[in-house]
Amino acid sequence: MAEKKFVEEITSMEDDFAQWYTDVVKKAELTGYTQVKGFMVIKPAGYAIWENIQHELDRRFKETGVENVYLPCLIPESLLNKEKEHVEGFAPEVAWVTYGGTQQLEERMCVRPTSETLFSDFYAKDVHSYRDLPRLYNQWCSVVRWEKTTRPFLRSREFLWQEGHTIHATAKEAEDRTTQMLNLYADFLEQFLAIPVVRGQKTEKEKFAGAVATYTVEALMHDGKALQCGTSHNFGDGFARAYGIQFVDKDNTQKYVYQTSWGMTTRLIGAIIMVHGDNSGLKLPPLVAPVQVMVIPVQQKKEGVLDKAEELKRVLTSAGIRARLDDADKSPGWKFSDQEMRGIPVRVEIGPKDIEKGQCVIVRRDTREKIVAPLEGIADKVKEVLDQIQHDMYENARARRDAMTYTATTKEEFTEIANTKPGFIKAMWCGDVACENAIKDELGGVTSRCIPFRQEHLSDTCVWCGRPAKKMVYWGKAY
Amino acid sequence: MAEKKFVEEITSMEDDFAQWYTDVVKKAELTGYTQVKGFMVIKPAGYAIWENIQHELDRRFKETGVENVYLPCLIPESLLNKEKEHVEGFAPEVAWVTYGGTQQLEERMCVRPTSETLFSDFYAKDVHSYRDLPRLYNQWCSVVRWEKTTRPFLRSREFLWQEGHTIHATAKEAEDRTTQMLNLYADFLEQFLAIPVVRGQKTEKEKFAGAVATYTVEALMHDGKALQCGTSHNFGDGFARAYGIQFVDKDNTQKYVYQTSWGMTTRLIGAIIMVHGDNSGLKLPPLVAPVQVMVIPVQQKKEGVLDKAEELKRVLTSAGIRARLDDADKSPGWKFSDQEMRGIPVRVEIGPKDIEKGQCVIVRRDTREKIVAPLEGIADKVKEVLDQIQHDMYENARARRDAMTYTATTKEEFTEIANTKPGFIKAMWCGDVACENAIKDELGGVTSRCIPFRQEHLSDTCVWCGRPAKKMVYWGKAY
Repeated sequence: MAEKKFVEEITSMEDDFAQWYTDVVKKAELTGYTQVKGFMVIKPAGYAIWENIQHELDRRFKETGVENVYLPCLIPESLLNKEKEHVEGFAPEVAWVTYGGTQQLEERMCVRPTSETLFSDFYAKDVHSYRDLPRLYNQWCSVVRWEKTTRPFLRSREFLWQEGHTIHATAKEAEDRTTQMLNLYADFLEQFLAIPVVRGQKTEKEKFAGAVATYTVEALMHDGKALQCGTSHNFGDGFARAYGIQFVDKDNTQKYVYQTSWGMTTRLIGAIIMVHGDNSGLKLPPLVAPVQVMVIPVQQKKEGVLDKAEELKRVLTSAGIRARLDDADKSPGWKFSDQEMRGIPVRVEIGPKDIEKGQCVIVRRDTREKIVAPLEGIADKVKEVLDQIQHDMYENARARRDAMTYTATTKEEFTEIANTKPGFIKAMWCGDVACENAIKDELGGVTSRCIPFRQEHLSDTCVWCGRPAKKMVYWGKAY
Repeated sequence: MAEKKFVEEITSMEDDFAQWYTDVVKKAELTGYTQVKGFMVIKPAGYAIWENIQHELDRRFKETGVENVYLPCLIPESLLNKEKEHVEGFAPEVAWVTYGGTQQLEERMCVRPTSETLFSDFYAKDVHSYRDLPRLYNQWCSVVRWEKTTRPFLRSREFLWQEGHTIHATAKEAEDRTTQMLNLYADFLEQFLAIPVVRGQKTEKEKFAGAVATYTVEALMHDGKALQCGTSHNFGDGFARAYGIQFVDKDNTQKYVYQTSWGMTTRLIGAIIMVHGDNSGLKLPPLVAPVQVMVIPVQQKKEGVLDKAEELKRVLTSAGIRARLDDADKSPGWKFSDQEMRGIPVRVEIGPKDIEKGQCVIVRRDTREKIVAPLEGIADKVKEVLDQIQHDMYENARARRDAMTYTATTKEEFTEIANTKPGFIKAMWCGDVACENAIKDELGGVTSRCIPFRQEHLSDTCVWCGRPAKKMVYWGKAY
């Protein structure tokens, strides 16, 4: 069989970022296809990343008292219609079920695009007293939104996610939970996925359909486009009033609950690819990597080499490292490229000369640095390298993000940056949606990404209209 | 607040088994309702059981080389229609999506009732060479089947499950995988859920739509009705031929793959309730119980009692036991009933006198046995009790199942048992579907549950028609 080097096969990201992305997704075997248009198949290498994300997020959720539940996948139209802004936001993009078996339904039902309406209906029936509050429920499921153009992980007619839906006795508790979950998302992204984010609030124009306030974590991709990585919404008592979620409070009066929701999706896999990847393929942070170390024997047909490589893998595995051995009948060079394409953070090379010297060679995926290390104590050394990679990948992503974050104080400056420098633009804003609309129209799709919690005073006036500024905003083109 | 004893509120299973079941599901807070008819909400206490089932099954799957994936939730009609027997089995009970947003779809799509068709389409595109085989994929998801009458966990328009779909180069490999997974299911049920099962093959009449052979694990509920707890199907090359799943074999010729599928569902929660429960409520085997031990303080307002109870909980938790403390402002008696209703396998009572003596009282949920134990070394003692409960619950369920398993060698005997004694009936069968149909019609719904792997020779002739017998069959009424 002819050995092809994967590295020769992918488009470079500088030439065509979109094609590079598609190539990585395909060559790293993250997704596959069926004839169901606009829907993706998540293959084992992609799904294992999602499992690690799920496991870590779920653990963090539960530490804050969240419990998992499961609600129906279909929503009757009348239920969807109860909250006016919400239905306007979602009705145009849902899939409608009209027949059950051979019978036409009396009322059509949509495949859930999100489940605020169902949780509201459920809570209205299930909650009676202040003793029943708060309710901190979450579900892991898939949702369907009838997108016109789709891309694996980034925009798909179906995606996997978690959606948390909580209800509280007071407005303050709901607001506290909304920001708590936003900060949980931010910490998860930075600590686990090594993705630096800007934490902030969405403008009125960009907030979720039906929310009083939407908070977001925004990351910057390699091409300078922003990706919204998670959102947390405070609904106030809007849904509670629309769906009648009431409770008897301590003072013996009927009150409406205050509600939140928050979600993260398989889109995160797209973020990992576009924040960390390079022209050799995927680059996974060690904590989320399904395989952290690939042991690759050199001259594996020589006596004792495969045995030693197998033993090395066992030593690493016993120490809790997710290690595998590539003993396929292929050249080491082919295996190196393959391991790099799949984003495995570390490879350990071992050949006859290494065995003679009682050593092996650790090669970092992120920097390509080669570290000759004694076999004695190898597991500790590999753990140290994995920790270092996790740390460095975050720092590098942050340095790149910072280098691609610009400041504009005038319309001209803003326009020039938007037209020539991909990245975030920090600029003051008057708070008027008219400026947001004009910016989007005139600068080819630049939108307000968020009003960051960490405000800076860049100037006194709105970068677009010159009226007094109210807030500093992160702007950018987004996925 | 008035304290009600839960035990007074549920129907006894001898009076009305169906109502008892409904009461337990409700009082143990396993499910809830929305206005989506026929669909269930799985509440935290129910979902936590499912999570433990998932975790253990997933671990066992992966040990055999299975990998998780995710495929689309919608199936285009033309794709569903490709395998004739399969579509005839499922088309009458699927939900049809006809609109995406405001646009009528060119081709309607059903919400997946099962995913053989999708996996076949995917594999046909993804597999090319014998080197790509076997593929051992599984997915965790929900499916929709438009049932007319529904009951929580047992029959619902949507349920959660796992569906494994594997393809192989040879018929033998596929057959081996089919029985391997069936045995994995049986071991899981017996070891983890303490549910004894009969392993066997479905008759032609009862097998899965499109399968060459369907294997099943059948359990007996408290009321003497059978519940199919898991199935494993060998499809031969039927789907491969219908969907064109071919590969180039080592001999350089194109061949069709051989295929299997196997699934377990949230129905297992219904099985746990109906095999183990009693008139005090749910009774969970320790291995699957989300909470294994409830620490209940007695005279908790006396100084030092709550502190000691809290310390006891911490000691148990540190030892890896899933323990909680019930420090609510309610009487111990109320808490005991509550813990029993929820099926928590062990409670530990501790009051001022116990503290004085350096002891506590362990009470088993299954036998109500009280064990006075010193606080010194309490975690080991509780572990020992939990192990014993797990063991005893299985043995008790098996003894009950065996006591409710009858043997019939004549039509008269068969009829009499079917009409008077709920349970399994073992009887010889000629192999003719006409006898199965007649038995079902004349004995009020008695069906062949399976042809057990462990055959017994009960007589020479079919219990119904008197012709020569081919196999011994387990018969019974089923959920």
